Amino acid sequence: MRIAIVGSGALGLYYGALLQRAGDDVRFLLRRDLDAIRRGGLKVTSPNGDFRLERVQGFATTAEMGEVDLVVVGLKTFDNDRLVELCRPLMKGNAAVLTLQNGLGNEELLAGAFGADRVLGGVAFLGANRGEPGTVHHLGKGHIRLGEFRGGISERATAIAARFAAAGVRCETVPELLRARWEKLVWNIPFNGLCALTGVTTDRILAHAPTRAEAVALMHEVIAGANAQGFSAPLDRDACVAEMMEQTVGLGTYRPSTMIDRQEGRRMELGSIFGVPVEKAAARGVEMARVRMLWALLDLPAPGR
Amino acid sequence: MRIAIVGSGALGLYYGALLQRAGDDVRFLLRRDLDAIRRGGLKVTSPNGDFRLERVQGFATTAEMGEVDLVVVGLKTFDNDRLVELCRPLMKGNAAVLTLQNGLGNEELLAGAFGADRVLGGVAFLGANRGEPGTVHHLGKGHIRLGEFRGGISERATAIAARFAAAGVRCETVPELLRARWEKLVWNIPFNGLCALTGVTTDRILAHAPTRAEAVALMHEVIAGANAQGFSAPLDRDACVAEMMEQTVGLGTYRPSTMIDRQEGRRMELGSIFGVPVEKAAARGVEMARVRMLWALLDLPAPGR
Repeated sequence: MRIAIVGSGALGLYYGALLQRAGDDVRFLLRRDLDAIRRGGLKVTSPNGDFRLERVQGFATTAEMGEVDLVVVGLKTFDNDRLVELCRPLMKGNAAVLTLQNGLGNEELLAGAFGADRVLGGVAFLGANRGEPGTVHHLGKGHIRLGEFRGGISERATAIAARFAAAGVRCETVPELLRARWEKLVWNIPFNGLCALTGVTTDRILAHAPTRAEAVALMHEVIAGANAQGFSAPLDRDACVAEMMEQTVGLGTYRPSTMIDRQEGRRMELGSIFGVPVEKAAARGVEMARVRMLWALLDLPAPGR
Repeated sequence: MRIAIVGSGALGLYYGALLQRAGDDVRFLLRRDLDAIRRGGLKVTSPNGDFRLERVQGFATTAEMGEVDLVVVGLKTFDNDRLVELCRPLMKGNAAVLTLQNGLGNEELLAGAFGADRVLGGVAFLGANRGEPGTVHHLGKGHIRLGEFRGGISERATAIAARFAAAGVRCETVPELLRARWEKLVWNIPFNGLCALTGVTTDRILAHAPTRAEAVALMHEVIAGANAQGFSAPLDRDACVAEMMEQTVGLGTYRPSTMIDRQEGRRMELGSIFGVPVEKAAARGVEMARVRMLWALLDLPAPGR
């Protein structure tokens, strides 16, 4: 399969490298890593074994990348104002586009530009970060739940999942992509939000009874927001919270991505993780008051800026 | 009038100094400032004119202070576990006790120990801080709204207000003390809370539309909590919010006391300003969700502690 990777951060580089290693024709849109990768290839470090790709197709613009079968989007969502223009040259043929970006609103953006039937989305559970140019560090996990933006299980989605599986990525197709996205938000909103805002790790949020209770209250809000979206089956509130809390205990001293972004002075993906969910819930009559407050506080320019 | 000042922080020192200057027999319970004040008296700096009291009655314990007519409490509320024992020797005679502490729950604590009919409270609008030992800086304002814990306007409250007035403090008696306390919380909860949590001044909270909206939403919660308490007249929500917002604009670049406490690594008065109000509202069926979240986040041990 000819695959374009648009947004070659840690996620794009990691999945792209695995797909190329498994035999796919992968073309990376690169910015920071362009020179390093053209010169020296791409190195992946991973608990599953390090490897290096000597020859990697790196491009500075999507116009140069040629025709592909699939566009995989890994762009940070705060750059979504560039997303459609970045993808447009690649979507001239019959390519489908799979966004693995965080949160909500990404599929809608692509569907508005290219048509809903060309869009898939995937929820990626990946721990990875970029090292020096030309190097990506896989820290753990990496499985993907993907599906058609329009819903249902398609041959196309199954074929894409098979490519990921061949590349060593556990990949599940889901008939209700947006339900899977909301499920992930049940964890991301409280923990990315509270940890980023307070600067403490997940274990500290759990150890302090009042913030632990707020994490649960935030989950309740997100579940109510999800269950107002009209999915085929509601999320089971208590089971969902219990599972999320158990997972979080298992993570130990964990820094969610939004917390890392904030601590390192980078932009945070606030719109897709907080803003769009708040608006989608409100549109269905569910006011997620605590989530809205977290969003407002995270979006406030920090002291001294 | 013989007056004991218990809790001689900036508030206690300032009001005590004014009362002594106006002729009252004022006795200060001192800790940090004891030696300096015994040696060199008490200096007040103020936009209304600086002054110095050469001879000040300072004591290390309340047992040494003798019999008084009025105990004025300025203790920080996080030390309330010591409040009753501190006051007990002074309450052996017929003294009344007036708490000028922040927030809710202080009168109840004193009433539980000494009887409700001996307790008054006052809401102080004072900008002041302590300088080096023996010096207090009055920054601005200073008026007081005081009343009987049990309600109604008493001769005693009127007489106490007259002493403050004689000392140069604008002082109003109010028939519903707790309503006045809730009114002040309509400002303190959003702005002390949001500024302390985020580390930005009040003008920055207002300048960012989402946090400005959160400040209003917090006010709405506090007003709903207040109006569930069964006061003779409800707070008018929109008028109250409009007035508070106008006042806040007038403050310019302002650091609320809780923000200063947090930034300087001191304890914050979270129980009386956030915790007791949340519980009093919940007891009347009003869940102040945003206030509870602010409280939980402020109460979370900071990173590295």
